[in-house]
Amino acid sequence: MSQTSFDTRAFRSALGTFTTGVTIITARGNDDVPVGITANSFNSVSMSPPMVLWSLAKSAYSLPIFKESQHWNVHVLALEQEPLSNRFASRGEDKFSGLELDEGISPSPLLQGCAARFQCRTLFVHDGGDHIIFVGEVLAFDHSERPPLVFQGGQYAVTTRKPQEPPRLTTVVPPPDCVYTEDLLGYLLGRAHFQLLYQLRETQQATDLSDHLFYILSVLLIRDRQSLAELNAFIGYTGSPVTRQDLDALTQRGLIAAESRDGMSRYRLTADGREASLHQIAAAKAVEQALTERLGESDAQILKLLLKRLITDSDPGLPDLWVADEPATSTENLP
Amino acid sequence: MSQTSFDTRAFRSALGTFTTGVTIITARGNDDVPVGITANSFNSVSMSPPMVLWSLAKSAYSLPIFKESQHWNVHVLALEQEPLSNRFASRGEDKFSGLELDEGISPSPLLQGCAARFQCRTLFVHDGGDHIIFVGEVLAFDHSERPPLVFQGGQYAVTTRKPQEPPRLTTVVPPPDCVYTEDLLGYLLGRAHFQLLYQLRETQQATDLSDHLFYILSVLLIRDRQSLAELNAFIGYTGSPVTRQDLDALTQRGLIAAESRDGMSRYRLTADGREASLHQIAAAKAVEQALTERLGESDAQILKLLLKRLITDSDPGLPDLWVADEPATSTENLP
Repeated sequence: MSQTSFDTRAFRSALGTFTTGVTIITARGNDDVPVGITANSFNSVSMSPPMVLWSLAKSAYSLPIFKESQHWNVHVLALEQEPLSNRFASRGEDKFSGLELDEGISPSPLLQGCAARFQCRTLFVHDGGDHIIFVGEVLAFDHSERPPLVFQGGQYAVTTRKPQEPPRLTTVVPPPDCVYTEDLLGYLLGRAHFQLLYQLRETQQATDLSDHLFYILSVLLIRDRQSLAELNAFIGYTGSPVTRQDLDALTQRGLIAAESRDGMSRYRLTADGREASLHQIAAAKAVEQALTERLGESDAQILKLLLKRLITDSDPGLPDLWVADEPATSTENLP
Repeated sequence: MSQTSFDTRAFRSALGTFTTGVTIITARGNDDVPVGITANSFNSVSMSPPMVLWSLAKSAYSLPIFKESQHWNVHVLALEQEPLSNRFASRGEDKFSGLELDEGISPSPLLQGCAARFQCRTLFVHDGGDHIIFVGEVLAFDHSERPPLVFQGGQYAVTTRKPQEPPRLTTVVPPPDCVYTEDLLGYLLGRAHFQLLYQLRETQQATDLSDHLFYILSVLLIRDRQSLAELNAFIGYTGSPVTRQDLDALTQRGLIAAESRDGMSRYRLTADGREASLHQIAAAKAVEQALTERLGESDAQILKLLLKRLITDSDPGLPDLWVADEPATSTENLP
């Protein structure tokens, strides 16, 4: 099972299981030329005196400058700095082009928007095989609340806190023979969905639109002038198909209007329908905003990312709501 | 903004933004006593020759043994090894008690169930302030597919891959003035929920139960003999309250039966109702299993974790489905 003859690729894979943050480390040479490289070999060493270390390939173009400068800055990258990570991981171009720099205690470039920054002075330079290990004293540092960028298994990753106890929706431990528990994905999706709609109704007493009628208006808000069959291509999968009665009810309330053409009825939002629908969407965004504040921006993003993957994985072939109609239809000039 | 006078707590917080894996590093002293400590100061150094490093506090009880043993094993911990991480992070007790060890190339203890393991020999020992830096040659290694445990900001964390491009549900970029996009949380929750139900119906053509009637049976499966009002305490928040007609329909189909007591009707599942409901739940579990395989076990767990937090944050005060009835009710001996 263990490998003793060295397969570099397997060694890289094994090392990749050790998750790291991503840093950019910068310095400025005596000729005033700035250098910077992306590195994940950073780590803390000592609290008192404050010391950190990182490793640089002996083959690195910037090695002589890091050696001569005696000062360097470590930037722990924030989640949104992935493009910066890529820029400093590649060779050649002027990596600092267009970047605003802060004033540091040494001439080494000090980047903005990071999760944390450490301004360091070289204490030791050790040999480390094909790398050089820089050990530095931290002269100054700062950090922000930005969620950090993470690297694992050769890819960028995002993290969420692992609670000591997973949140429980019940105060009891269901018996082992319980046919389903709060851990059933369908239960969790349904409950999360219906609770969001419940909050929406609470803030929307005035509107008095059922969820089902709200879905119909929401589709028409993005794609106006749909036939009953077209509406059902978007809504039928919910298990509650749109009926002629639904459309009549919305028409009677003055929220939609029918247009007849070639013997087929198409429905469009009236001004009132558009207003009611926009009102609902604004309320949905307000509910989402409040929930995002409680979850945290980063965790809300992760939740959406995973929901999108789940939706992609379980898509029964729904048409794309946001894509423009086929040319044949979209060039029709409906009055 | 930058701190130059050293506040150790702030320094720790700043270092905490750099995400790391969690390792246990073990060795065995000349007296055959094994030592092991939890460390996140591990990192790779060199590919050729293969070298890694880590730092140990000079105050550590195990320092003399790590110095004398010349060999040590680094274990990159898997997500489920959090208890092991805690055990080796504390002092005193026999940390290896009850652990099965593998045979390694040195006498150093080799733990099981890890994300990766590196068997090393000390090459250099460097001074690092209040720590000692061990640089070792990797003599052997192995790794598994287990998702790794992560540490960030002083807490355990879980990771999910950050795709280069977030999955998109539409092939177009909605215009900036688009009133809502695929990024609306309510849209994502609704679509994920309804698609799961859609898959359930696809695999369940025979049953012909609406989602709404299925919810009623599901509640009765966990809590039998509920009144209409009690059922609605669990289901009413969905926006589709249970009606007397729903209960009549289920009764006519022989899936539930009413019991009258003190002038109040309570409903229980019949054998057929129980069977139909169990059938649906089994199908829901099969759909969930297939989706979990596509998402990956670890990402499915993260999705559930975040859904539970969302549900807790948006709970309108639903009763606990799994908690036993109040004593006054549960001691009633319904015939």
